[in-house]
Amino acid sequence: MEIPEWKDVLEAYTRIKSRVHYTPVFTCSAINRISGCEIFFKCENFQKTGAFKFRGASNAVLSLEQPQAEKGVATHSSGNHAAALALAAQNRGIPAFIVMPETAPRVKKDAVSSYGGEIVYCTPTLEARESTLKAVVKRTGAAFIHPYNNFDVICGQATAAIELLEEIKDLDVVVVPVGGGGLLSGTAITVTNLSQGTKIIAAEPKNADDAFRSFKSGVLQPPLKPGTVADGLLTALAPLTFSIVMEYVDDIFCAREDSIINAMRFIWERMKIIIEPSAAVPLAAILEHRGFFYGRRVGIIITGGNVDLTDQRFI
Amino acid sequence: MEIPEWKDVLEAYTRIKSRVHYTPVFTCSAINRISGCEIFFKCENFQKTGAFKFRGASNAVLSLEQPQAEKGVATHSSGNHAAALALAAQNRGIPAFIVMPETAPRVKKDAVSSYGGEIVYCTPTLEARESTLKAVVKRTGAAFIHPYNNFDVICGQATAAIELLEEIKDLDVVVVPVGGGGLLSGTAITVTNLSQGTKIIAAEPKNADDAFRSFKSGVLQPPLKPGTVADGLLTALAPLTFSIVMEYVDDIFCAREDSIINAMRFIWERMKIIIEPSAAVPLAAILEHRGFFYGRRVGIIITGGNVDLTDQRFI
Repeated sequence: MEIPEWKDVLEAYTRIKSRVHYTPVFTCSAINRISGCEIFFKCENFQKTGAFKFRGASNAVLSLEQPQAEKGVATHSSGNHAAALALAAQNRGIPAFIVMPETAPRVKKDAVSSYGGEIVYCTPTLEARESTLKAVVKRTGAAFIHPYNNFDVICGQATAAIELLEEIKDLDVVVVPVGGGGLLSGTAITVTNLSQGTKIIAAEPKNADDAFRSFKSGVLQPPLKPGTVADGLLTALAPLTFSIVMEYVDDIFCAREDSIINAMRFIWERMKIIIEPSAAVPLAAILEHRGFFYGRRVGIIITGGNVDLTDQRFI
Repeated sequence: MEIPEWKDVLEAYTRIKSRVHYTPVFTCSAINRISGCEIFFKCENFQKTGAFKFRGASNAVLSLEQPQAEKGVATHSSGNHAAALALAAQNRGIPAFIVMPETAPRVKKDAVSSYGGEIVYCTPTLEARESTLKAVVKRTGAAFIHPYNNFDVICGQATAAIELLEEIKDLDVVVVPVGGGGLLSGTAITVTNLSQGTKIIAAEPKNADDAFRSFKSGVLQPPLKPGTVADGLLTALAPLTFSIVMEYVDDIFCAREDSIINAMRFIWERMKIIIEPSAAVPLAAILEHRGFFYGRRVGIIITGGNVDLTDQRFI
């Protein structure tokens, strides 16, 4: 199991730089007042496909040797990684096979299709998903691109923090959400190499706190029936991301469901940007742990903006 | 009735430049594909108080001589101008008296209060509004700042287009919504002076088409029971704005209600920014008049982002 080094991240950035949006950093005086700290939001909701996942997917697709690339890429996901991989593959002119449960929301199927991804349906169980993916890979020869337990994906996700730290100097803390840990791992590598004095904090829904339990115990813990509105964070750490998190991350703070929804609505209303619930977890965690952040300069990566605004839990 | 000249606009920009946000210009490849033209969105939804109105209100407040300023400012409005005037007054340390109907939504009352505005309630009729305002002005000596039929307000609104044209060169058309015509008048003066080849088009809801009827007939027309989701555009042109519109504006295009809602949702979903219905009228008008805009470089001013996301008409 190879952990990415700083040079791997820099190579990834060179590879994808011209293919991804350089997203803006926003601030909001109302949020600074209420949180008691100065927050800089790196807006990856404005990234292509509406999420940072396009960075990792692009790096993984562009890293393939040509003979492998021609056979395409495959993954199982119904979320942002699926859409990101489909577009990254389309940009290289190769096929993307996306295994999705038949029950996935229409809007997610449409997103994958609109980027030219080929959807392969399975029944909505973990077993069906994995066996269907195996069959697709066997049939097509496509490369399986895991959403986060993947060297190249982590290197790609690490590039958002490069831009954040280039633009905003002297951050005391960077906070990112943790699900599978791809963004967290990449960000931690970048922050450690570019800004030694900056702490790296992960934010996780209390209702899906496997990373918190793994981090505190030092042993990779299984998820325990996670149930959170932050549906991008239902996944658990994997061996590769767990080892990076244990090495580089300073702490993990959890946030309650009501805090997450309130933080999301607050960002919608005051910053006039649309973010998904997972992207609100860092602000929710900050507001639940004000003492730690008080008076500090804090960077947050807004992970994505793909949300169903008609969801009755949010309004 | 004095029409602002270019030097008045430049003076306004010098006056307010350090007090307003320099808002970003966004583009969206999905919207360009669907519209058949290249659109540049000047995002005044990210302006202080969530709307371009803060420019005009700031210029009006800062233009007052000190003895008058000390008595404060007053207006009747339950919308973006009210919040903008309250904050502009707070920034100068003077009182703002805002006449509002008792029936105004709580969120609008809260916005004015949060910026330190003093709300004076009236019954929800035009007569009550005007007589209450008169009484407030008589009692306090405050200066009445009309939302759009005001020289200094128009000069302030004109500054958004300065930034748009500085950043994006060679626009073929600039499209802005028209209600009372403050933004339209200001934008028209700026475009005429900075970019002679650029056409100025107003966009208006078909269900509140008094500006369209005034423009086509050459005679200022009264509003005819306007009813539109674009609640920032219910107002009618006034003598000052009408004369500027007749002199500088190239055409007015109307948009249906369903087009406005669809355009707003499309911008929410694809651009991940929150805009209010009035701000969607330009895109709606473009999509209803594709032939005119086909292949052109088009600037739009996104007027604001103050919207009730739970409004059942939108979701």
